[in-house]
Amino acid sequence: MLTATYARRMEAVRASEIRELLKLTVNRDVISLAGGLPAPELFPSEDLAAITATILLNEGAAALQYSPTEGYPPLRAQIAARMNALWHTSYTAGEILVTTGSQQGLDLIGKLFIDEEDEILCESPTYVGAISAWNVFRPRWIEVPTDEDGMIPNELERRLDACRRAKFLYVVPNFQNPSGRTWSHERRRSLMETAARRGIAVIEDNPYGEVRFEGADVPSLRTMDPEGLVIGLGTFSKIFCPGLRIGWIAAAAPVVAKLVLLKQGADLHTPTLNQMQVSASLAAPGFAERIARIVALYRSRRDAMLRALEREMPPGVRFTRPEGGLFLWVELPAGIDARVLLARCMEAGVAFVPGEGFYPNGGHANTLRLNFSNMSEERIEEGIRRMGVALRGLLANRAAERVEEARVP
Amino acid sequence: MLTATYARRMEAVRASEIRELLKLTVNRDVISLAGGLPAPELFPSEDLAAITATILLNEGAAALQYSPTEGYPPLRAQIAARMNALWHTSYTAGEILVTTGSQQGLDLIGKLFIDEEDEILCESPTYVGAISAWNVFRPRWIEVPTDEDGMIPNELERRLDACRRAKFLYVVPNFQNPSGRTWSHERRRSLMETAARRGIAVIEDNPYGEVRFEGADVPSLRTMDPEGLVIGLGTFSKIFCPGLRIGWIAAAAPVVAKLVLLKQGADLHTPTLNQMQVSASLAAPGFAERIARIVALYRSRRDAMLRALEREMPPGVRFTRPEGGLFLWVELPAGIDARVLLARCMEAGVAFVPGEGFYPNGGHANTLRLNFSNMSEERIEEGIRRMGVALRGLLANRAAERVEEARVP
Repeated sequence: MLTATYARRMEAVRASEIRELLKLTVNRDVISLAGGLPAPELFPSEDLAAITATILLNEGAAALQYSPTEGYPPLRAQIAARMNALWHTSYTAGEILVTTGSQQGLDLIGKLFIDEEDEILCESPTYVGAISAWNVFRPRWIEVPTDEDGMIPNELERRLDACRRAKFLYVVPNFQNPSGRTWSHERRRSLMETAARRGIAVIEDNPYGEVRFEGADVPSLRTMDPEGLVIGLGTFSKIFCPGLRIGWIAAAAPVVAKLVLLKQGADLHTPTLNQMQVSASLAAPGFAERIARIVALYRSRRDAMLRALEREMPPGVRFTRPEGGLFLWVELPAGIDARVLLARCMEAGVAFVPGEGFYPNGGHANTLRLNFSNMSEERIEEGIRRMGVALRGLLANRAAERVEEARVP
Repeated sequence: MLTATYARRMEAVRASEIRELLKLTVNRDVISLAGGLPAPELFPSEDLAAITATILLNEGAAALQYSPTEGYPPLRAQIAARMNALWHTSYTAGEILVTTGSQQGLDLIGKLFIDEEDEILCESPTYVGAISAWNVFRPRWIEVPTDEDGMIPNELERRLDACRRAKFLYVVPNFQNPSGRTWSHERRRSLMETAARRGIAVIEDNPYGEVRFEGADVPSLRTMDPEGLVIGLGTFSKIFCPGLRIGWIAAAAPVVAKLVLLKQGADLHTPTLNQMQVSASLAAPGFAERIARIVALYRSRRDAMLRALEREMPPGVRFTRPEGGLFLWVELPAGIDARVLLARCMEAGVAFVPGEGFYPNGGHANTLRLNFSNMSEERIEEGIRRMGVALRGLLANRAAERVEEARVP
């Protein structure tokens, strides 16, 4: 009845068939390599029970009350200090806006910048949550060809030259979701030179940076940003837990001031208690140790997945070897549709995410994303084994069909 | 630097001078009749500490994990059951979307319906949070003249006739923020007849309905809605606590399905733990008793404020006598600017909110909103006394200026 009165932007908002399909995995004994769920066995349940009781019994009147849109002041200061220590930035507390997960950061940034038909430039593939946050503002998505070191500089320049109103560059430089790739230092420097020359904002989304298994940190884009063009996004979802929904935006103070006005309209403020829970947890002993346990666990799960892929995948399958994060990326032989493979795998009790949804302009049907954070090594190995069986089945069918076609007079 | 690249919608997003001014009240010993803060002495701090420990120790892996965008299933069912029991509606769990405060409900509804220049019709005055949520979508605000019983029907019809693309009617039928007024049954029926005849959506925002001091409940618009045009907004902020940010939208299932897609882009989901905290609190003994204590406390504070206003306000001041909620509304003598009065009152250590911000098209400088939920009876009485002194001072100045002007040849 009301359908006729929806806003035009709803044309760009569609339910994902894949997401609906994957919902079926929740209540069944499926080996899910699909979601991006952290390992719940490392959640801080007991510590948080004690911390929460202390907060509620000592400061309940504040913890359960409305609070400033900008965020809980001690948490803003802690986030700035952590970023500065980890990434050698020089943020102040006033440059941090606490958000209801970093997904809200994406929404607020879209509201701040995107007019209909504006261009936004992203890696190809890019984070699907950014696509869903920004499609409502009806931008043109410019996918920049990306190799194992990041966006290819002359491809970026060429596309920027063709833009009419390019609003920002969106990148996930560390262990990208979905590809698992990390930008090289050189490519980061090149990106920031381009951004500075053109005066264009850069969204540096870094949810996985602390989940590094090996190798050295690569400098944050923010350390190459004398102009204040970088807007950073962060989250406690991967290094603490996602269910509290605590993320942040780090940006120049005038940008934060605008984002605060938008957040006021969006949800008034992020839950007060949750901010105090994270703040107290950061101040308590054991925060860094828990991250170290997460890193060790995910490293061994990544290793298990890589070993299984090497063993089980037929020739012609390529996959990335991420130095951190939660995901790796698979390219199937050309002509194999990952959605068809998913249907077969679901019958065999294994789920993953076909890659097409990570390309805002579609295509790339032969790609898929695998998550290794949420399943045990045994289940990862068994899942990849079943995927291998299903894929070899598809390839055999295809070969048989070709023989068949060749026989038809 | 980035200012030049903001989206056009930012022209409609401005910092409120009043809000900035009122921030100054937070850290001083000001009698604040300004905010809309619930009384923290009735927050469920101790009960919630115990409930949270139980959740985290028994179900921590779920409580701290990502969860469905639609909301925690038991909470959706509890909200539907409560609404049906309180308001004689017939919502199912599938018609409830849990939101990060009901402010997020406003944002999602704006995204779903409003194209630039679309008309939205509201009471005059209306809730300032709706103005800040929807201004980003650049609608035309059509204020409908409103008396003590609700929108005036022929004024509404006349304005709808003049609309090109009216998208929805927005009303707060119970103890409205800011006016404190409650719609009569007859006016509600008339509104829904108009909405049905024209096939226009109605947003029924009901944050205060359970905070009734006297008189009988008036039926919900939803009970007069065979077409499914009503979209309800609710919140636990006023009957439990605001710091957890748990609200909801109640609407026909196809509308909820669209809102779910928008919420996915906006913040993925409302914090899992917070939803489980509210769900467990609803199931525990004492929830209704706590609401009864809130109602009794706010009733006595409203009474204290009304007594003080009768005693302290000079002739020519009018105010509403709300049957519930947190606010009442004051009209000063014509020509007195509430912002000027606020400046005087701030010097005397009292704060309130000037009324102009509640009119999306401005004007009505002689109005103001008073909150009675957050201060003791003694402080309310002292605050109103000081306001009376300040106002009489302004009126005396004005009288003296008039005598002066009459003398000038």
